Amino acid sequence: MSKKVPNRILLTEDQIPKQWYNVRADMKEQPDPYINPGTMKPAVAEDFYPIFAEELCRQEFTMERYVDIPEEVLEYYKLYRPSPVIRAYNLERLLDTPAKIYYKYEGSNTSGSHKLNSAVPQVYYNKKQGIARITTETGAGQWGTALSMACAYFDMPLRIYMVKVSYEQKPYRKEVMHTYGADVFPSPSDTTNIGRAILAKDPGNTGSLGTAISEAVEMAVSTPNTRYSLGSVLNQVLLHQSIIGMEAKTQLEMVDEYPDYVIGCSGGGSNLGGLMSAFMQDKLTGKANAHFIAVEPSACPSFTRGVYAYDFCDVGHITPLAKMYTLGSSFIPTSIHAGGLRYHGMSPILSKLYHDGILDEARAVGQKDVFDAAVLFAKHESILPAPESAHAIKAAIDVALECKERGEAKTILFGLTGNGYFDLAAYASYNSGSMENYAPTDEDIEKGISEIIKVPGL
Amino acid sequence: MSKKVPNRILLTEDQIPKQWYNVRADMKEQPDPYINPGTMKPAVAEDFYPIFAEELCRQEFTMERYVDIPEEVLEYYKLYRPSPVIRAYNLERLLDTPAKIYYKYEGSNTSGSHKLNSAVPQVYYNKKQGIARITTETGAGQWGTALSMACAYFDMPLRIYMVKVSYEQKPYRKEVMHTYGADVFPSPSDTTNIGRAILAKDPGNTGSLGTAISEAVEMAVSTPNTRYSLGSVLNQVLLHQSIIGMEAKTQLEMVDEYPDYVIGCSGGGSNLGGLMSAFMQDKLTGKANAHFIAVEPSACPSFTRGVYAYDFCDVGHITPLAKMYTLGSSFIPTSIHAGGLRYHGMSPILSKLYHDGILDEARAVGQKDVFDAAVLFAKHESILPAPESAHAIKAAIDVALECKERGEAKTILFGLTGNGYFDLAAYASYNSGSMENYAPTDEDIEKGISEIIKVPGL
Repeated sequence: MSKKVPNRILLTEDQIPKQWYNVRADMKEQPDPYINPGTMKPAVAEDFYPIFAEELCRQEFTMERYVDIPEEVLEYYKLYRPSPVIRAYNLERLLDTPAKIYYKYEGSNTSGSHKLNSAVPQVYYNKKQGIARITTETGAGQWGTALSMACAYFDMPLRIYMVKVSYEQKPYRKEVMHTYGADVFPSPSDTTNIGRAILAKDPGNTGSLGTAISEAVEMAVSTPNTRYSLGSVLNQVLLHQSIIGMEAKTQLEMVDEYPDYVIGCSGGGSNLGGLMSAFMQDKLTGKANAHFIAVEPSACPSFTRGVYAYDFCDVGHITPLAKMYTLGSSFIPTSIHAGGLRYHGMSPILSKLYHDGILDEARAVGQKDVFDAAVLFAKHESILPAPESAHAIKAAIDVALECKERGEAKTILFGLTGNGYFDLAAYASYNSGSMENYAPTDEDIEKGISEIIKVPGL
Repeated sequence: MSKKVPNRILLTEDQIPKQWYNVRADMKEQPDPYINPGTMKPAVAEDFYPIFAEELCRQEFTMERYVDIPEEVLEYYKLYRPSPVIRAYNLERLLDTPAKIYYKYEGSNTSGSHKLNSAVPQVYYNKKQGIARITTETGAGQWGTALSMACAYFDMPLRIYMVKVSYEQKPYRKEVMHTYGADVFPSPSDTTNIGRAILAKDPGNTGSLGTAISEAVEMAVSTPNTRYSLGSVLNQVLLHQSIIGMEAKTQLEMVDEYPDYVIGCSGGGSNLGGLMSAFMQDKLTGKANAHFIAVEPSACPSFTRGVYAYDFCDVGHITPLAKMYTLGSSFIPTSIHAGGLRYHGMSPILSKLYHDGILDEARAVGQKDVFDAAVLFAKHESILPAPESAHAIKAAIDVALECKERGEAKTILFGLTGNGYFDLAAYASYNSGSMENYAPTDEDIEKGISEIIKVPGL
């Protein structure tokens, strides 16, 4: 069998993009502005200075199309980038589909995911500004691991609030962060007002991403020369993650391909936002017209069952309000195993693009179906995927089978955001046969949405 | 700062070697032959037919210099190879050494190590012969994981005997093998005569690699159409692993380098044997003269404190005898965290080369010192190393500092065999400050050696 396209399409380090791409520069309709909860007025960059390093605040609001990647950040990127685009020949054969399936694999660095792409610049800009310490939260642990690696490299102290249920169930994930020098606290903790208040009411509270965010932000704004860092949702994160899609576009061009479908899992949007970037630019500027699919867990269906409204990003309501698809900040998703996708809201950029029909489609998939796809993929493509990434695998398989039905040799690109080394308790649950698909009831969904605080005039 | 050499030196898939290199073809003095324990005569390939697939038996004895890699094996190699050679710029800066440090990284596939390089051909040849099932043992779990991945790919049933203490302490490692479809039994088990005998004498026995080998071999030879598979020690394994060194040599040539030092950790010899191959060929044929260093744990010092003698490869004494550096098959190393290096013996090829002074040097390093090196490396080079691999890091750092002392800009190549994702209990022990260096007493060593069965006439 002669193959024109290699299994792994590689770039050299001089092909790492030197600039990030800001998709907002090409959006004709802009996302609605953040609202400062103190004034209930649209926020400006300076409003975020107590929370984030100043350059990151500037990036949150910039309308520049391209932002230079600092040399120091590029030096770190070169330790693990460019990441490969891989042709899933075995999966294609197995599905007997005429579709061509490619995936961009971000899981071969120690953080195990794409999160390092934003962790490195975030730590760099804080270091450059002379910030003494960073705080953050982590749920599944991928973001905390990535940030602890970047902090070790730039010699920056880090405090991580880890959702308590993950802290207790994933001792090894915590140990990676310790090894890279981070302090890790289970959230809710007794180190913040918000944590103490929650524990006073409910001592057995096992935490949530929204609570951990509140604790990390409170600690940052109430401690001298300390800033907070967030691994998803924000415009700055999508900016940094644009490197994924820019590399992938170059890699597909090298084999004369352009994706008909771009598929990514979406929790807060960091991966899908990054993967789609360069292809979305083509769509926004009329150069090409890929079909974009966001894949979310049916257990936390922000796009498919949420509302497009202003909401807080955290449980404690101390962050700015963002206009986004949301299930309500009081919505606590069931503890599905794709912890990285358990977030009530969604990137404002992705939300706007979806609302306007430019991000074409969102699909919610069940946990059991996702693991079926994950194990099939592992056995035939060799990589054990993270449960988050497996959402995209599931959708890619479905699309490839739809192509087969229609006899169409379409080109599919999906994001394999990470590996599943730290998710083996979830695989154990799947292997034991006890895993089921799950979706919240209409009452659960309605309750979360009804508790969204209505902001007058918005 | 201008850099001529990139951080990561990459090859494309058409640069994967098409043949393995057999170092025995260039050894003027051959290793002493295996001894068939039934006849106490030198073994021939046919003696191994009940244990291994026939083509693997042939490879165990072949004197051909090159062996073609089957197309089907190359197809799998392309899923994760070629592996990168990485220049450790940050480590060099940190040590302020004039030495140049390169490492060949084999840890970015899901098995987490180089073991896949031999697992794939071993399963392939068994499948081709129509073998119905494979048995194996695993200690740290890297070999079992690699073999389960290869078995999933070639649709071959697999039974793994996992050293009981690892089975209980590493539930996640076991779960990876389950996910790829393997059956995993704790060893000693009640499924074999040897296991039952051990449990009858000592019900709380937590197992050893030597016991697990005995169980897996017994199961293979006593079950119809079943064969055994071993991930280290054997000539066939070093043959398959030669791909590591062949790639590395090409990669260094691309940046006009040749190693003055080649450094690898050595448990059974699979990694060092593979990494050194192409450079050892140059030494054996007078073309170049790298200095080779085997690094072993001071807790299991086969090279540095063992004897060069005929010994069994297993506790149950059902395998052939091999002439090798050994601590005696009854030697049970303390449960140091580099489980992959806890083996009483050593590859007969490496043993012979070391005995003849061609493999220049062996160093034993303490566990605490190894983890000091591992964490330093992780923080500055970003990759979290497997404890086994960290033995080579420790030695590479020492050599780089020796170069600094002497003001020599030597080129160092070491093997980073794997990542540490499944060794976080060990990192936790290190992080807690409770880890210490350890070496057996002279009495421990003498006891093991004194129990080696003396074979008359050998």
